[in-house]
Amino acid sequence: MAYGLARRELRPRVPLRHGEGDRHHLTSLEGLAALSLDALSSVAYGPEAIVLVLIAAGTGALTATLPVTLVIAALLAVLVVSYGQVIAVHPDGGGAYAVAKKDLGPRVSLLAAASLVVDYVLTVAVSLAAGAASLASAFPSLGSHLLEVCLVGLALLTAVNLRGVADSARVLMLPTLLFIASIFGIVVLGLLRSHPVAVVGTTQPVHATEALGVFLLLKAFSAGCSALTGVEAIANGVPVFRVPRVKRAQRTELMLGALLGLMLIGMAVLIRRDHVAPRGGVTVLAQLTAGSYGTGWAYYATNLVVTLALALAANTSFGGLPVLMSLLAKDHRLPHLFGLRAERPVYRWGVTALALLAALLLIAVNADTHRMLPLFAIGVFIGFTISQVGLVRHWAKERPAGWLRRALLNGLGAVLTTVAGCVLLTTKFMAGAWVVVLAVPLLMLLFARIERYYTAAGLELGLGEVPPPLRVTDSLVIVPVGEVSKPTHHALTAARSLGRDVVAVAVHADPVKARSLEASWERWNPGVRLDVIDSPQRSLVQPIVEYVLRSAQDGRQIAVLIPEVEPLHRRYQILQNQRGLLLAAALRARTDVVVCVVPYRLDL
Amino acid sequence: MAYGLARRELRPRVPLRHGEGDRHHLTSLEGLAALSLDALSSVAYGPEAIVLVLIAAGTGALTATLPVTLVIAALLAVLVVSYGQVIAVHPDGGGAYAVAKKDLGPRVSLLAAASLVVDYVLTVAVSLAAGAASLASAFPSLGSHLLEVCLVGLALLTAVNLRGVADSARVLMLPTLLFIASIFGIVVLGLLRSHPVAVVGTTQPVHATEALGVFLLLKAFSAGCSALTGVEAIANGVPVFRVPRVKRAQRTELMLGALLGLMLIGMAVLIRRDHVAPRGGVTVLAQLTAGSYGTGWAYYATNLVVTLALALAANTSFGGLPVLMSLLAKDHRLPHLFGLRAERPVYRWGVTALALLAALLLIAVNADTHRMLPLFAIGVFIGFTISQVGLVRHWAKERPAGWLRRALLNGLGAVLTTVAGCVLLTTKFMAGAWVVVLAVPLLMLLFARIERYYTAAGLELGLGEVPPPLRVTDSLVIVPVGEVSKPTHHALTAARSLGRDVVAVAVHADPVKARSLEASWERWNPGVRLDVIDSPQRSLVQPIVEYVLRSAQDGRQIAVLIPEVEPLHRRYQILQNQRGLLLAAALRARTDVVVCVVPYRLDL
Repeated sequence: MAYGLARRELRPRVPLRHGEGDRHHLTSLEGLAALSLDALSSVAYGPEAIVLVLIAAGTGALTATLPVTLVIAALLAVLVVSYGQVIAVHPDGGGAYAVAKKDLGPRVSLLAAASLVVDYVLTVAVSLAAGAASLASAFPSLGSHLLEVCLVGLALLTAVNLRGVADSARVLMLPTLLFIASIFGIVVLGLLRSHPVAVVGTTQPVHATEALGVFLLLKAFSAGCSALTGVEAIANGVPVFRVPRVKRAQRTELMLGALLGLMLIGMAVLIRRDHVAPRGGVTVLAQLTAGSYGTGWAYYATNLVVTLALALAANTSFGGLPVLMSLLAKDHRLPHLFGLRAERPVYRWGVTALALLAALLLIAVNADTHRMLPLFAIGVFIGFTISQVGLVRHWAKERPAGWLRRALLNGLGAVLTTVAGCVLLTTKFMAGAWVVVLAVPLLMLLFARIERYYTAAGLELGLGEVPPPLRVTDSLVIVPVGEVSKPTHHALTAARSLGRDVVAVAVHADPVKARSLEASWERWNPGVRLDVIDSPQRSLVQPIVEYVLRSAQDGRQIAVLIPEVEPLHRRYQILQNQRGLLLAAALRARTDVVVCVVPYRLDL
Repeated sequence: MAYGLARRELRPRVPLRHGEGDRHHLTSLEGLAALSLDALSSVAYGPEAIVLVLIAAGTGALTATLPVTLVIAALLAVLVVSYGQVIAVHPDGGGAYAVAKKDLGPRVSLLAAASLVVDYVLTVAVSLAAGAASLASAFPSLGSHLLEVCLVGLALLTAVNLRGVADSARVLMLPTLLFIASIFGIVVLGLLRSHPVAVVGTTQPVHATEALGVFLLLKAFSAGCSALTGVEAIANGVPVFRVPRVKRAQRTELMLGALLGLMLIGMAVLIRRDHVAPRGGVTVLAQLTAGSYGTGWAYYATNLVVTLALALAANTSFGGLPVLMSLLAKDHRLPHLFGLRAERPVYRWGVTALALLAALLLIAVNADTHRMLPLFAIGVFIGFTISQVGLVRHWAKERPAGWLRRALLNGLGAVLTTVAGCVLLTTKFMAGAWVVVLAVPLLMLLFARIERYYTAAGLELGLGEVPPPLRVTDSLVIVPVGEVSKPTHHALTAARSLGRDVVAVAVHADPVKARSLEASWERWNPGVRLDVIDSPQRSLVQPIVEYVLRSAQDGRQIAVLIPEVEPLHRRYQILQNQRGLLLAAALRARTDVVVCVVPYRLDL
């Protein structure tokens, strides 16, 4: 899944122009290729999640896979039609956060933001874990190293995204088409054959521990709902389509719904007919693959395609989270530095944070997809519900022609996703959903706390007020020096050019060296007074800070000019100037003076 | 072992005064308590190392433990007498690095420095691993978690040393005395009894795979030499003794030699008589402990005392490495920042680096003491040899009365340690000694490379030359502003006080916001021109850097004053000012202008 905002990422690369047939914008089919991978790739874990629940009532209970899948497909149909209306109302995309902010007020938008953050992390972790399981189905020797495979994959994705990824919608087309073709190949070939060509994996003993009651069916339904993650991506990416934008996006949403529904139902039919149960070392999808294609090259190729699709689904979060963070920063709910998207080093923080959180999660659950699905689906359903409720509000406010019918449709979507969310929460609370119940309010609290700080800071900074006129005072420029050298010369030149009154100050632990410095100073005679401070403790920073504080007592404007040697090659930076940086940090922390650094460049 | 320089650490706390009976200086016995723990604690792994080699020739071969130990004790005797002369010649202490620098030239001193660094890391790792094994002998449930125990211990030591450790020589006395008493108790009680009171550990099958030939004996000898690590500590710590300093230190060295020799021989006798062979889950020392004390409280207490002694031995490196690093920094062989010992944050880098390297090493060998001993002993023997050869040179140069006899004694020490070192290297090359053979030259190369940089930089900086007179130019102060606010007011006030010519510059991605800023500027009318740059790419840094470069073209002295908001609480720092820091970094990297930060304090 790619929570909406991920799609905004596509915009800078596919500039929003209003010309028909603009080759930078996508047709319906191209949009499908570009935006559907997150949703479609969830067939790699959704049906399996159902099977894993039902097996608790014995192999016989697996026949319930089909009816459960049909209910999920019905929910999918409602969601797809409902998102068609989201597309019409929000042709600028924006996702649950934007919708909530516009129609549901600040508190709900905090909820949307928190669940989005949780889901970005989970998208990365779940997709990587499922991808590793798919890879291990083809190469069983990887089976005991799933976590390592995930972490290597995560490291690769992180590296690519730290370097800055130059992807475009079109890069995703081939993998998407291959993935769709592979899955439909499995379904169609499987239905044509009377029995599986090959069986892979090791038999596992089945102990029926539960009866096939309503509760188990609800659990299976909520587990299978993880297959619905990602269907909101198209609604969030409307701006990347060619005009008529809304029509094309709606058509794509319908195609996505039809494809995903057919895949899920087709897989469920095969699971029921072939009595597919969980087997050791392979995924359910890999079992279906072997059943339709046998275990030759097509089996390996399909598993690789599935792995690739899941890796690309994980990658979308790396595009999406920084965008969400910049929106939150603009709303003063995250540090403003996350809003500086154009500045490269800052963008990297988001990528690194995402990678670390995903790695921790993968380690915590030992790369087991199904231990993360409960956490995953809840956040997604919060997003679904917020989008639908927001639209109901919208219709009730705007009341265009047929608003009641539209509001009822979105209302039905909201009720269904709320119900599904509650079922998820209650059936999966102990299985991990409690983590989300903790994490989401904590994140909301954090956002609210940051917003409160910025409000208070804005008042103190006098934003919006007209400041008093400037009151210019005398100034003194202080230059800390260590020895007579070219950087010292350079810094004193700058100081004399800037200030009317300049003084140099040196700190020495060793009196002999201090006298020798004074002697060279007199030989040079730069026309600037030198004050030497003895510091038997060998600290340089403390005496200069005290000297500066003393000098500032008469109310003059003080500037401290710190000479700094800048080597040409970055690798030599560690060899220079740490003293200056320490001093600058201490002065900034403990005084109100102007702290300046005067770089002197080396040719080294 | 504590390579000499570790002892310098004691000096700032035990100031070097020349008064007799000064209570801050140590008597011979006190010095023994303070300086011998590193050497003595190696009985926890030295004898075991011999047993582990000999067992390859079957249990019968274990009788060779005693003769091998006697040879090691003979080497110890030579080393002790030889170090007595080192004490006389270098009453200021200083260790192998100082000796080599004085008498053997820069290249050898690089070798000494590199092997010292390697040994500091190994001291931490070996002592912790041996300590964990000792602890697990008392509490067998820890046996499968040795690595975890080591890493927890390492984390504790690191935390204590990062906070700054307030230890003194006297803190070490009680553990040292307890340790000596425990070991002699084992030896004496063991010799009095006719057979072991109790046998601990699980029997391990013995397969004789080698014959008891010269090669195996050499291997056993070189393995046992790890028991000699640390005997140089007293020679390096002479300044902590009371006058007559040299006499007292020599007496302490003799006592250390006698104690260590007696311990080793006593343990070897017991090992031979009781046929002590490696057993599962317990150390050889723990087997001897059980043999003498039984398995009651005395067994537990002794193992805890041994663990404590080893942990304190590990701790000495944390005091020693930063001192060595500051000496190397003073000689321009490490970044100068390591020489800033008085500045706390810098000192922490050394501690952290040491902890990380030790952790990596422990993980790499899975906390197995005996896999690290080959690496450990080689570095130590390099130090031994350098000290002795340096002294031979010294005698040959100075030629005092009896110089030939003295030179011969140190020469014998040098030859023996060289031979032992070569034996170690050849017998243990594949077992890990190659790591040292790689690491030491690489470190030497690094030190030499850094020295070359500083020499070249010194030339470019014109150190020692008299610079030309100052040439004062016109100046321009540029103040980047984001909005009209109190920090802007503050920065402009500072700018006007400093410079004759001041200009404010703003970057805006959004033309609407740009016009609104211009309007508020006009309302305020601070008497400073405002230049607004449009930046559709939303980057703030790049346009300002270009603006500054353009302004600098006419040769004026440029200063950029960056307003920065400083929250009262550090936790809010992340919420402010990152833009300013990014801009400052970019300006520093890409221009030669003076970069200033004007802090504005918030009450938040």
